[in-house]
Amino acid sequence: MKKKNKKVNAAILIIGNEILSGRTEDKNIAFIAKWLNSSCGISVYEVRVIPDSEKVIIKNVLELSKKYNYVFTTGGIGPTHDDITAKSISKAFNVKYEFHKDAYKILENYYGKSKFNDGRKKMAMMPGGSRLVLNPSSAAPGFIKKNVISLPGVPSILNSMIENCKKYLVKGSIIYSKTLNLFTVESNISKQLGLIQKKYLKFVDIGSYPFFRLGKIGVSIVTRSTSKEKLKKVNKDLIKLTKNKKIQILKI
Amino acid sequence: MKKKNKKVNAAILIIGNEILSGRTEDKNIAFIAKWLNSSCGISVYEVRVIPDSEKVIIKNVLELSKKYNYVFTTGGIGPTHDDITAKSISKAFNVKYEFHKDAYKILENYYGKSKFNDGRKKMAMMPGGSRLVLNPSSAAPGFIKKNVISLPGVPSILNSMIENCKKYLVKGSIIYSKTLNLFTVESNISKQLGLIQKKYLKFVDIGSYPFFRLGKIGVSIVTRSTSKEKLKKVNKDLIKLTKNKKIQILKI
Repeated sequence: MKKKNKKVNAAILIIGNEILSGRTEDKNIAFIAKWLNSSCGISVYEVRVIPDSEKVIIKNVLELSKKYNYVFTTGGIGPTHDDITAKSISKAFNVKYEFHKDAYKILENYYGKSKFNDGRKKMAMMPGGSRLVLNPSSAAPGFIKKNVISLPGVPSILNSMIENCKKYLVKGSIIYSKTLNLFTVESNISKQLGLIQKKYLKFVDIGSYPFFRLGKIGVSIVTRSTSKEKLKKVNKDLIKLTKNKKIQILKI
Repeated sequence: MKKKNKKVNAAILIIGNEILSGRTEDKNIAFIAKWLNSSCGISVYEVRVIPDSEKVIIKNVLELSKKYNYVFTTGGIGPTHDDITAKSISKAFNVKYEFHKDAYKILENYYGKSKFNDGRKKMAMMPGGSRLVLNPSSAAPGFIKKNVISLPGVPSILNSMIENCKKYLVKGSIIYSKTLNLFTVESNISKQLGLIQKKYLKFVDIGSYPFFRLGKIGVSIVTRSTSKEKLKKVNKDLIKLTKNKKIQILKI
């Protein structure tokens, strides 16, 4: 029996002035997107980076949560004045911004009663009815409210938490991908590549990305599909193209 | 006389399935944002990453070009079938998608008449009435149509072209910034930091970002303002805070 092709999608909402100013280079988009693809069969359809502004967060959370199956937010769930993600999401969904009992206990335990100050307590404040995404590296949990999952901005902490999101997610069909690295330039194969894409239009997505490696110019041809069989077929056509054009393949 | 505080803003629109799939880590957001800030006094207010889909590109170009002073797009202006940025922008602005005479000449010269094939010619196709952003590293120009500037996705090529955007941009007031790296945790200073932010609310933006360096945990306090004077004042308050709390400052 043929397996049903189930598409599940997500958006990523990066919240943080430091990314918009260019001070910090984002590391979370690629990490989350890769993990969603390979572990959950979920495709990221859109990413937005927005400032630490309540109004802007509310607008984007509402827009994206309506449009996509899941929204992953990163940043703004720490203890300082510029951490306003939890409060903004509460307002967006019109629920109370309140202490989450379990999060409070986790943090109180982690810091110890005497050192559990107001800033630290703030990290237990969440949209009412949130479920927790546990944090094995620095205790302060992320949370999921409706279809919005809020994670911290620090990549090492986010990375340590990502597996704990899994239980909340409906999985989609895994997308398989294959990369062929060719020592040629895009404009040498663009016509033929276009024809191959046309042939497999509904089943395989073909991307073409220039690279510089070993002092030579090349093109990575990335094919992506939910069907392993179709992926094999399209790659046969690509290999034929390289033979016809006498293009060297870079083996890694 | 007090200089007028002129705010000019921009959005960045990253076009490319390879970023959404996580295959490629974006390098252009931070580069463009930093350059706009430091060279042009232009602040990036929003970034979006979207797929190579005509419909989606048109929608986002129209939305962002109405909302911000400038929109920088990256990606999708090469010779292959998935390069559809120029065509999509033409449709968005309801102008012809046609050969740009100067771009055509530049590319014909670069490749030589005999090797100027269809794929390469495609890179001279632009929205009617575009002005060129010259490309010193690989010839194929970017272009500006209305307030939308389209650049390639390959970071090294984009970087080589960025200065050629300058003549098309109205400059804003330069935003100064200062970073103080403290060996403490956010939750130890969050309350005081909040009070300082309140005091300078309209003039200085204070961000707080955890870091790990030299095996120790720390917090970078980043202050940003169009006024050097206000920046000095807020940093005096911050130094006072570190003295009161006996926090070590990391000197770099």
